[in-house]
Amino acid sequence: MALTSYNPRFEAPLKRPPTGIKQASFISPCKIAILGFGTVGRAVTRILTETPHPSLGLTHIYNRSVQRKRESWVDEKVKWTDSFDDVLASDTRIVVELMGGLEPARSCIRQALLAGKSVVTANKHLLAKHGSELVELARKAGSRLEYGASVAGGVPVLCALQQGLAGDQLTKLSGVLNGTCNFILSNMESRESAFSDALLEAQRLGYAEANPADDVNGLDASCKLAILSRIALKVEIDPEQVATTPITSVRSFDFAAAKRIGCTIRQVSHGELNGRSLFASVGPALVKLDSPLARTYDNQNAVVTWGKYGGETVLSGCGAGGGPTAVAVVSDLLAIARRVPAPDHINCDDELVRLPLGSDFSSEHYLRLSHGKMRSVSQLIRQKCKKHGITAQSIARQNGGSANVQSAFVLSQCLHSVATAIVDEVREQNRFLQPLLLPIR
Amino acid sequence: MALTSYNPRFEAPLKRPPTGIKQASFISPCKIAILGFGTVGRAVTRILTETPHPSLGLTHIYNRSVQRKRESWVDEKVKWTDSFDDVLASDTRIVVELMGGLEPARSCIRQALLAGKSVVTANKHLLAKHGSELVELARKAGSRLEYGASVAGGVPVLCALQQGLAGDQLTKLSGVLNGTCNFILSNMESRESAFSDALLEAQRLGYAEANPADDVNGLDASCKLAILSRIALKVEIDPEQVATTPITSVRSFDFAAAKRIGCTIRQVSHGELNGRSLFASVGPALVKLDSPLARTYDNQNAVVTWGKYGGETVLSGCGAGGGPTAVAVVSDLLAIARRVPAPDHINCDDELVRLPLGSDFSSEHYLRLSHGKMRSVSQLIRQKCKKHGITAQSIARQNGGSANVQSAFVLSQCLHSVATAIVDEVREQNRFLQPLLLPIR
Repeated sequence: MALTSYNPRFEAPLKRPPTGIKQASFISPCKIAILGFGTVGRAVTRILTETPHPSLGLTHIYNRSVQRKRESWVDEKVKWTDSFDDVLASDTRIVVELMGGLEPARSCIRQALLAGKSVVTANKHLLAKHGSELVELARKAGSRLEYGASVAGGVPVLCALQQGLAGDQLTKLSGVLNGTCNFILSNMESRESAFSDALLEAQRLGYAEANPADDVNGLDASCKLAILSRIALKVEIDPEQVATTPITSVRSFDFAAAKRIGCTIRQVSHGELNGRSLFASVGPALVKLDSPLARTYDNQNAVVTWGKYGGETVLSGCGAGGGPTAVAVVSDLLAIARRVPAPDHINCDDELVRLPLGSDFSSEHYLRLSHGKMRSVSQLIRQKCKKHGITAQSIARQNGGSANVQSAFVLSQCLHSVATAIVDEVREQNRFLQPLLLPIR
Repeated sequence: MALTSYNPRFEAPLKRPPTGIKQASFISPCKIAILGFGTVGRAVTRILTETPHPSLGLTHIYNRSVQRKRESWVDEKVKWTDSFDDVLASDTRIVVELMGGLEPARSCIRQALLAGKSVVTANKHLLAKHGSELVELARKAGSRLEYGASVAGGVPVLCALQQGLAGDQLTKLSGVLNGTCNFILSNMESRESAFSDALLEAQRLGYAEANPADDVNGLDASCKLAILSRIALKVEIDPEQVATTPITSVRSFDFAAAKRIGCTIRQVSHGELNGRSLFASVGPALVKLDSPLARTYDNQNAVVTWGKYGGETVLSGCGAGGGPTAVAVVSDLLAIARRVPAPDHINCDDELVRLPLGSDFSSEHYLRLSHGKMRSVSQLIRQKCKKHGITAQSIARQNGGSANVQSAFVLSQCLHSVATAIVDEVREQNRFLQPLLLPIR
């Protein structure tokens, strides 16, 4: 890094320091096209407009019906277009794909790479599903494909895993990776609100889409878990094969019960090498109040990794929203402009494997049953648990009238399949019991 | 990243996946010499021995009186030497400096760079003091100088700041950067022990040196703060000019008082751009119990950064010890072997500046006074505060006999210089008052 007398971030030239002076060597700017001028596209344009990055130059913005998108604060030299062919035919060196979804994003990225352009994208669905194919295509074309913004927004997770922790052997990771679920669950926690109210609030504030299915069911987080597994654990998985549990069944009673044992509830994505298989799951789980996963609120994300040599490492910050996601995009643009090799070219010592997927983790479990007045529910649970060699401890009970009693238990350490079998057996005795079974991480 | 059928981390070859298969392209191994076979040198050797990194090959271990250091588990092809000239004359491509201290580390690194070798070091004192000079020398020699292990051990802070957050404008950072201080303070917190007892325990367990002055006085953390300021804030500072307060005056009473207002005490290193100057300080401070800085125990480190676009980002993990520090060293070795450009060559858009240093932060302050029985101490504090336009709230008082009363107050938001003036005025009235003044971060 050169030590010079002037930094454009400060108002006026400063005195030259006495030693180590050297002019920075500027590269001619990389021409950049942005595809999709939504929240993130606008935020990326904002950073490129406000911050002097001599190595980056925005030249094209592509969007359908682009005329309604035009903004007066964008440099007038930038060309607004609704023709992707315009972008392809231009001399832009980097295409930033911010349209989302599988198509036409995949086709646009393929065409850009084949045309010798590098690509930066925030598209987790596409990268989880077709990442290896696109990385391979980029390699063959001699181009670059960067996707730091696809996981945990502004938190520099991918670069930390690919480079800063490259010297470790990571065996396990847990994350709070979905901003919508986290907004809903952390608001259920702090405001003691019902799931449906928290979802409406999230939609009102733009944290949840009109159809939040991919978020609340766990597909979005599964995609991010697939990307993290590839990079941290060197295992390739299909996001659609990850065991998921939707967060929709979580009630405010569950937060109150969890609090009794020093926990809260978050959507946790978990991947763990387990002998010759990878255990992976996404769903609501109890987490200790003093854990980094519990201390995520609203749109915050957190990733915790465990390494053989370095132990536990935590990265957390703003996981969603225009600004933080744009930071990750611009960081990727700088890495390309500054000719940092592609991370996928870096890990040449590491080889990806496919492993059988499992999700039969061993843990303590939280079990909540909603039932009519039935005095023997505790007895029934304890009896069934005893049969499987584990114990159940009652932690909370709420009487909401004769047809609406809720009881919560902690089951001692066992495989998830065992806990599920217990719940099935309990339901065989009483089909009206509505159970919720969550791991305690 | 190539998708292949075998990963040496698993026991046996696995089935080839159906698509995306490509053999990884191996580079011939980089020959490596380690200087200094202490805790970290041993841990680096352990990782290089246990983990197959085809791009890395350890060939030399240098230490004074090397024969007493020999270990049977090290590959017998490795040459043990007590002559640095042997290393210089060899065909090693990377020299790993783990001797610590300014000399002879600086000379060895200079000679290695001038001989066209790249250097990896964990030496924070040297990098803080002579970093720009050595980086410049490496650049001129066409070699590489990496120092990811110099700050926060295994926590991938430098790579996250240099690359993952490159797209943001960072304005402020806070960190718990010294393992010894953190061991002492977190043990004073959890065991309610006195400073001297916690220090003895730290020395017994190897967390503190026989002479812990550089740690407890703040010089070690100042060096790390100087490195972070250079990379995150693009400001060059002299670690010896940073305002430091030793942690030696903190008592277990202070932890009890801090807890009353939801805080604990940590050695906090803080750097903040403040108009045309950089505010920097290292010393004990009150931090909220739910902040990432408070949730560091024993040898854990944490760094929190604030960016204009990405908001708050947290990185934490094991900041000291052989294993975590070795992870950072091996990650740097891999970055060189895999030809990732030097981070200092990367940030060619950014220029370093020197700014006037300040430490007159505005904050609430914690004030503890030890005094003989003097009923009017509260009144005296309030009176002096009022004169400066701020308020004082009494939060704790302990009666340890007539000559040993301790009183704690929170002073409302003001400049540190104002709080210091108040303490001076109070002491003018009563020279026997022993004050401790800490910022509340």
